[in-house]
Amino acid sequence: MGDIKIIGNIVEKIPWEEKKGGKYGSPVWRYSNNPIIGRNPVKGVARIFNSAVIPYGGEFIGVFRGEQTNGIPYIYLGRSEDGITWNFDENRIPFEDEEGNPFMPLYAYDPRLVKVEDIYYIIWCQDFYGAAIGMAKTKDFKKFIRIENPFLPFNRNAVLFPRKINGNFLMLSRPSDSGHTPFGDIFVSESKDMVYWGKHRHVMGKSSNWWESLKIGGGAAPIETTEGWLLLYHGVSSTCNGYVYSIGGAILDMDNPSIIKYRCENFLLTPEEWYEERGFVPNVTFPCATIHDAATGRIAIYYGAADSYVGLAFSKVDELVGYIKDNSKVSESDTEIGKR
Amino acid sequence: MGDIKIIGNIVEKIPWEEKKGGKYGSPVWRYSNNPIIGRNPVKGVARIFNSAVIPYGGEFIGVFRGEQTNGIPYIYLGRSEDGITWNFDENRIPFEDEEGNPFMPLYAYDPRLVKVEDIYYIIWCQDFYGAAIGMAKTKDFKKFIRIENPFLPFNRNAVLFPRKINGNFLMLSRPSDSGHTPFGDIFVSESKDMVYWGKHRHVMGKSSNWWESLKIGGGAAPIETTEGWLLLYHGVSSTCNGYVYSIGGAILDMDNPSIIKYRCENFLLTPEEWYEERGFVPNVTFPCATIHDAATGRIAIYYGAADSYVGLAFSKVDELVGYIKDNSKVSESDTEIGKR
Amino acid sequence: MGDIKIIGNIVEKIPWEEKKGGKYGSPVWRYSNNPIIGRNPVKGVARIFNSAVIPYGGEFIGVFRGEQTNGIPYIYLGRSEDGITWNFDENRIPFEDEEGNPFMPLYAYDPRLVKVEDIYYIIWCQDFYGAAIGMAKTKDFKKFIRIENPFLPFNRNAVLFPRKINGNFLMLSRPSDSGHTPFGDIFVSESKDMVYWGKHRHVMGKSSNWWESLKIGGGAAPIETTEGWLLLYHGVSSTCNGYVYSIGGAILDMDNPSIIKYRCENFLLTPEEWYEERGFVPNVTFPCATIHDAATGRIAIYYGAADSYVGLAFSKVDELVGYIKDNSKVSESDTEIGKR
Amino acid sequence: MGDIKIIGNIVEKIPWEEKKGGKYGSPVWRYSNNPIIGRNPVKGVARIFNSAVIPYGGEFIGVFRGEQTNGIPYIYLGRSEDGITWNFDENRIPFEDEEGNPFMPLYAYDPRLVKVEDIYYIIWCQDFYGAAIGMAKTKDFKKFIRIENPFLPFNRNAVLFPRKINGNFLMLSRPSDSGHTPFGDIFVSESKDMVYWGKHRHVMGKSSNWWESLKIGGGAAPIETTEGWLLLYHGVSSTCNGYVYSIGGAILDMDNPSIIKYRCENFLLTPEEWYEERGFVPNVTFPCATIHDAATGRIAIYYGAADSYVGLAFSKVDELVGYIKDNSKVSESDTEIGKR
Amino acid sequence: MGDIKIIGNIVEKIPWEEKKGGKYGSPVWRYSNNPIIGRNPVKGVARIFNSAVIPYGGEFIGVFRGEQTNGIPYIYLGRSEDGITWNFDENRIPFEDEEGNPFMPLYAYDPRLVKVEDIYYIIWCQDFYGAAIGMAKTKDFKKFIRIENPFLPFNRNAVLFPRKINGNFLMLSRPSDSGHTPFGDIFVSESKDMVYWGKHRHVMGKSSNWWESLKIGGGAAPIETTEGWLLLYHGVSSTCNGYVYSIGGAILDMDNPSIIKYRCENFLLTPEEWYEERGFVPNVTFPCATIHDAATGRIAIYYGAADSYVGLAFSKVDELVGYIKDNSKVSESDTEIGKR
Amino acid sequence: MGDIKIIGNIVEKIPWEEKKGGKYGSPVWRYSNNPIIGRNPVKGVARIFNSAVIPYGGEFIGVFRGEQTNGIPYIYLGRSEDGITWNFDENRIPFEDEEGNPFMPLYAYDPRLVKVEDIYYIIWCQDFYGAAIGMAKTKDFKKFIRIENPFLPFNRNAVLFPRKINGNFLMLSRPSDSGHTPFGDIFVSESKDMVYWGKHRHVMGKSSNWWESLKIGGGAAPIETTEGWLLLYHGVSSTCNGYVYSIGGAILDMDNPSIIKYRCENFLLTPEEWYEERGFVPNVTFPCATIHDAATGRIAIYYGAADSYVGLAFSKVDELVGYIKDNSKVSESDTEIGKR
Repeated sequence: MGDIKIIGNIVEKIPWEEKKGGKYGSPVWRYSNNPIIGRNPVKGVARIFNSAVIPYGGEFIGVFRGEQTNGIPYIYLGRSEDGITWNFDENRIPFEDEEGNPFMPLYAYDPRLVKVEDIYYIIWCQDFYGAAIGMAKTKDFKKFIRIENPFLPFNRNAVLFPRKINGNFLMLSRPSDSGHTPFGDIFVSESKDMVYWGKHRHVMGKSSNWWESLKIGGGAAPIETTEGWLLLYHGVSSTCNGYVYSIGGAILDMDNPSIIKYRCENFLLTPEEWYEERGFVPNVTFPCATIHDAATGRIAIYYGAADSYVGLAFSKVDELVGYIKDNSKVSESDTEIGKR
Repeated sequence: MGDIKIIGNIVEKIPWEEKKGGKYGSPVWRYSNNPIIGRNPVKGVARIFNSAVIPYGGEFIGVFRGEQTNGIPYIYLGRSEDGITWNFDENRIPFEDEEGNPFMPLYAYDPRLVKVEDIYYIIWCQDFYGAAIGMAKTKDFKKFIRIENPFLPFNRNAVLFPRKINGNFLMLSRPSDSGHTPFGDIFVSESKDMVYWGKHRHVMGKSSNWWESLKIGGGAAPIETTEGWLLLYHGVSSTCNGYVYSIGGAILDMDNPSIIKYRCENFLLTPEEWYEERGFVPNVTFPCATIHDAATGRIAIYYGAADSYVGLAFSKVDELVGYIKDNSKVSESDTEIGKR
Repeated sequence: MGDIKIIGNIVEKIPWEEKKGGKYGSPVWRYSNNPIIGRNPVKGVARIFNSAVIPYGGEFIGVFRGEQTNGIPYIYLGRSEDGITWNFDENRIPFEDEEGNPFMPLYAYDPRLVKVEDIYYIIWCQDFYGAAIGMAKTKDFKKFIRIENPFLPFNRNAVLFPRKINGNFLMLSRPSDSGHTPFGDIFVSESKDMVYWGKHRHVMGKSSNWWESLKIGGGAAPIETTEGWLLLYHGVSSTCNGYVYSIGGAILDMDNPSIIKYRCENFLLTPEEWYEERGFVPNVTFPCATIHDAATGRIAIYYGAADSYVGLAFSKVDELVGYIKDNSKVSESDTEIGKR
Repeated sequence: MGDIKIIGNIVEKIPWEEKKGGKYGSPVWRYSNNPIIGRNPVKGVARIFNSAVIPYGGEFIGVFRGEQTNGIPYIYLGRSEDGITWNFDENRIPFEDEEGNPFMPLYAYDPRLVKVEDIYYIIWCQDFYGAAIGMAKTKDFKKFIRIENPFLPFNRNAVLFPRKINGNFLMLSRPSDSGHTPFGDIFVSESKDMVYWGKHRHVMGKSSNWWESLKIGGGAAPIETTEGWLLLYHGVSSTCNGYVYSIGGAILDMDNPSIIKYRCENFLLTPEEWYEERGFVPNVTFPCATIHDAATGRIAIYYGAADSYVGLAFSKVDELVGYIKDNSKVSESDTEIGKR
Repeated sequence: MGDIKIIGNIVEKIPWEEKKGGKYGSPVWRYSNNPIIGRNPVKGVARIFNSAVIPYGGEFIGVFRGEQTNGIPYIYLGRSEDGITWNFDENRIPFEDEEGNPFMPLYAYDPRLVKVEDIYYIIWCQDFYGAAIGMAKTKDFKKFIRIENPFLPFNRNAVLFPRKINGNFLMLSRPSDSGHTPFGDIFVSESKDMVYWGKHRHVMGKSSNWWESLKIGGGAAPIETTEGWLLLYHGVSSTCNGYVYSIGGAILDMDNPSIIKYRCENFLLTPEEWYEERGFVPNVTFPCATIHDAATGRIAIYYGAADSYVGLAFSKVDELVGYIKDNSKVSESDTEIGKR
Repeated sequence: MGDIKIIGNIVEKIPWEEKKGGKYGSPVWRYSNNPIIGRNPVKGVARIFNSAVIPYGGEFIGVFRGEQTNGIPYIYLGRSEDGITWNFDENRIPFEDEEGNPFMPLYAYDPRLVKVEDIYYIIWCQDFYGAAIGMAKTKDFKKFIRIENPFLPFNRNAVLFPRKINGNFLMLSRPSDSGHTPFGDIFVSESKDMVYWGKHRHVMGKSSNWWESLKIGGGAAPIETTEGWLLLYHGVSSTCNGYVYSIGGAILDMDNPSIIKYRCENFLLTPEEWYEERGFVPNVTFPCATIHDAATGRIAIYYGAADSYVGLAFSKVDELVGYIKDNSKVSESDTEIGKR
């Protein structure tokens, strides 16, 4: 492991597989037994894909987008000893309001799961008279209490930072429109209390790199490193036969994450395998979470594949950040403070 | 076999394969040797897929959408001893008018084949200064006489009921527009003479279930059961990478089929296999016919796969109707008489 | 008056104004006091425009599209002594079913009013799970009984012929889609009983003349003349700033009106005056009715102007039919029987 | 004046003209000398239209959307003795940040001007990497200090309430997309400090009334009345020749304005005059401000006409609120608390 | 007259009217008797608008877009003594090929007329399996011989320079697509022989000025001045209710016209009068020609108004060029050589 | 080998594999080890697909579309001994201007490589303020000198003829628009000097055959045969799930190639294999080059598969031309000279 290090916890049981052979290219490689979650993983659920996992109690826990057999997505809880084989609750997560009354969204998808201080926050996309961000908190993964929706619609792909910065919570999000949005930039917003949000700043937009020339959106929660916040995000290209979702990487300034320090002009992963190219939405690799180990610098990336499967890929922090720095190309709107 | 029965004929040679193992979910399972018809099945025909088959003379006969190598679809006749291996005529079905003169449509696709009393009716989609329903009748599968087009354009997916109701022929259809229609409900119309049609009623529309949230259309001819008319239809979802066609199920009122008694909120089959996900139109499972046996309650479902192949799936009437009832969710526009 | 005559009744009080001066061009000229009906013509109605009038009891009666102040169109009854000054009922026409129960469409627009034998038929566009044709009959303009909707959606601009042909009722209609349809041809359908309709035939489509190069639709009920059925219809052009609706003319074969004998390549009237160019929908002249006098050959054309006003224009049958014949250009799809 | 009263200040010099004669319909009537501001009102400005005015120092002051001759909109200050004749500053309003540095938006349009306690707030639409809400405050109309943008893009038509409710500022806004948005509902958000915003609630959406069946958006700042908050807003209809903007009215609950008490199904004003139908964007009447007098109940409505002119219309609070109540039709999403 | 002069001929009878009063703004003012050509100007022609005129034999001659009553545009010849009152030939210009055989385009519109050396060239838009540039030459306005179409489709708005530069003919054009093109830049191409064209260079594109933020296109033939080539062109803005066409101005480098020296950020004329705002295509002012007098610096601008009328406007070269220089804002793509 | 022969060179080492077995249909068969070039073929290049190869120095050389890992396409040089295994330069081809200065396009894709007399020409699609044709020449594949862009944008799929005709260079091209063009015909243009181009003629458009009913475009350089120029081109069909690209064939007149002598109504190859159906753009077979041997009549077709792979297919000239002739269907616009 080089000079670049993860700032964070040690996760001894992090899933891992060494890189094999030597294909040209990116410092991210796929797990050889992908996909780790196949179709019809649990009764009444046709596909589990975009997923957010986290170490918990020496093992792993996660929230997953489960596409019910009526087609409507909801969030399911799963547990795993090794981060690879997962057992899912058959029932959807039972959200409630602060009075303990059931308070279920009409639908919920693309969750992220982030621990800040001693609370676990789940953030997802739901209906709020339009697609918007929904949130809940839990301490024990038994009781899930809804928090105020942080933003007006239309918004998707909200990602919380794993610690407060300058005393405030920070959240990335991707303002959108009401359909298959053909545009989208990442913004960051602040809150003192998880109820009122403001000081919105533009972080980064699409680029001249064709793989992210249509829109982008936040992916996994940022990983704190000695170089800044490592952000794995998705970038989208538009072809005559639909969108292609690839995984990209950037390093955000530690104290002022609306400023991009490095942004990799190359994708880190793009659909190449059958489970990424074929499925409900072909040609999608969509990162929603990482497990990362400060001791070894290992990073395990969980990504949705073709809106049908869960894929797993690996990297090491020094290789990954090094590659992003070596291939960095930033624009004016990336590096400015993002205030207008 | 349970209490729910098919009202109809015995078909001893119905193709059949028992369900294997126990995937969660729907009471419909695929034939293990799918697809039963591959590419380039006959000279000058690139793909045969949406297909309508019927027992005939102790064996099986069917009409098939054959995509010619010039890309233009036409209807071909096929015969089979077992319902699985099919032999096709090399020439297109030679339609003629009532005077015996050739009267071929410019193109013809997505046929259905229904016997009412002693006549076999073929119904398809063709050009009538726009996409519309074409029809012909035959008694011997040698002479095919065109009948008046029942409806004005634009219409697709017409399905005849296998017997008269209250003395009238009944036909389902799906009014459309001139292109890749992004909407569509099922209506039913009546006729005394197969020439003049009226008393149109709305049967069912798209639903809040995402797999059928864009449009729906009739599939196989309704199967008469002790619970009502069992309708297998297709429902369409719209993703950023195109449409996905799944198979759904509903039970229509026996005497007044514009009223839905039960409608399954879950799809019965959705594209999961390579021959359903890959092909000329990826992610299509499109039912056009069943063979069903009143003695055993077995149902063999023929469906087009990816507009490239013919797939075969199985179910049993009690399991299938039971599942539809157990998961039924009907809306006001489903259950009303459908007159405005 | 020349050799060409109207076959029909004498209407002594037909509104009339002689042509003034001599602008180049069409044999149709505007009334000098247009518009004859202005905005806010009756309480709760913002605009009355597309309108259908008929001689009745020595005076005139009509049904009118009235845009309520909630924006929803409905049909209103109006009466006039001279065909120019109109008094409207404040309430919408109270449609009922055959049992005498109220049976009101959700909305209703673009009515036509035609007398066949001793019954007055009103035909309009309404919601039938999509835009479709609604119908009612009356003998006394007091009791209005709904008839079965003749066609499946989506359809607009239905026009009944003023007498049976070969023992059947005939109706023109214009199949459409669910929005601001960018295409549309005129078809004719037959019925023995006003319940079941069939023997649909294509009459005419858009043409290479730019003023009708997007779509066309039926207008006033056909006028029987010694040359055949005189049809005034609308043709639509699409500019970068919206649609332009002009009035065109054609002569249909007397016994087989799916055949066009003459079709005028020039528009007869196109938006030129402020009340045609400005309003809720700018640039619309839309004919819905004529009053015509067999004695003099005079024709008074009522047309909607800019979806905001009623305009009146005049012509004489010999001039008008003569002009259509002199400038006739027919295509193959115009002159064929229209069966495929 | 009836029982319904304005809760607010006395504005003796409120512009006023009595209703003349008696057209059917709405309780809002136009000023007879409209438009009050014509084209090319000041050097370098082609058109002034959407405008926000307020009593100030015994006279009137306002902020106006001025379309520069390069087509780019900006906000201009104007002053008037009588509220009818306006004098405009030739220069754009010079916004600055809290340090006193110039901080001009790239463009700015559709301003609202609201006094809360002793501060005047200007709210407009501007570029924030997409259309979003911009804000500034002033005490003297000389120094204009920018405040944090309250919301993420894409948003338009933000309207501040003229006093705090339950200790919080409240603001209406209309989430949008990046273009000529074909949808849009009104939401309300709260803030303790004008920096952080939250507790977003849905107020009202489009309706089944055709004049507001495409989208709606906030208009003038709500007027406090004895019946609740009187909101004048705009509703949009979509025709084949473009959008039509009308003025509508609703009464919001005094303490919980996400709840609609009454909502008028009829428009209050719709484009009918030449200066509303003709101009840069035909068929627009767009309310941005009122001046209202608690003593007399008089309300003067300022509205943009055809994106080219300023129009003035009048009403009285009892007539207006009475009409809204008499014609009220509310939906479930109007009357619910608006939280999901 | 100032220091800036027209390089060219003296045209004594140039139409002229002095500027009246003093509206703020542009150095271009309208003729007080506009429009100079009204509707139905000649038999069989509904509207004459975009027009190209030139001094000829002591008087004036021109080619005009005449919209026939079948809606199809063609080019008509007109003559005038004063440049204001025009007489038109009733027949379309009879184009022929080099062998003298008739060679008429299917349609032809938006002509320009330019004299280079002793030949008059007419350039227009026509069908060449798509919209493309057509050309013809004449010496006497009696015989019009077609020249090879200079460019592949899709192209519009071609404008020839009035003299060769560096020994080559130069022509501006605006590559397009097949419909109501929502984009478009001006290019310049060279030819030695009017048959083969090459050395294409980009001249200028749309700009950040909203009045020309959608697309632009060449207008009148460039006027040679002591400051460079004065180009009057059209710029288009897109509103929710359609396109708005304004007139803009730029100065191109004398020897290398792909380089813009000055480009006025403000429009010079934009639709404000009824004949510009109302008509077949509302909100269009579209310049196609100027008459200019080197002796006085007077410029008479002929422009199409609302695709329905011909308008006339005036300016003086020193005022006009001065205004363009004073308000110049050029981008990198304007000032570069335009080669990639 | 039959009577139909290739006119051209002997290429002894042409890659070859005999047809196996006997599927119905086209005279083109795939190489059994397809794809011959897989993903990540060289460092920094994710996919190589559309490719143009040529015999050179007893072996083979080619230019290839290489999709860089930033998604931007560029042209790479490759060499092969057998035409099947290829070695690629790691760097992009270094284009320069005539003075020897670097002159690289922003991006470059879909190259063709044609030798005329003793010079090798590379033709590709690039940015020229829009998609347009770029060109360069080389004699030694070391120095690549850019030539003037032959056409204005928007254009794609330019293909040079391998010899002059009547003393002129000839080039096919396909005028387009700025995006995923939904239309497109093939034109031919002439040049004496590769700088100025003219005498444009329409060659062929889309057809009523559904596989080429959306658009077509040139593919491999025409092969000279005793029957005329054999053109392999691509035809595109539009489904609800995107475009499908097939390979078609036509024979152009030897001396006047704007005239089509034969045009095969059937596709010659259409996506059927996994590497054609799955990838960055599913369902694409796109021919860019052939190697052909006059001695044996063998033709090796190189085609891009799914914008991800290179496929190889084979045919023999007599079979291929015979099949085209036997299945020929030509339209009027195919066979005319193509001048309007």
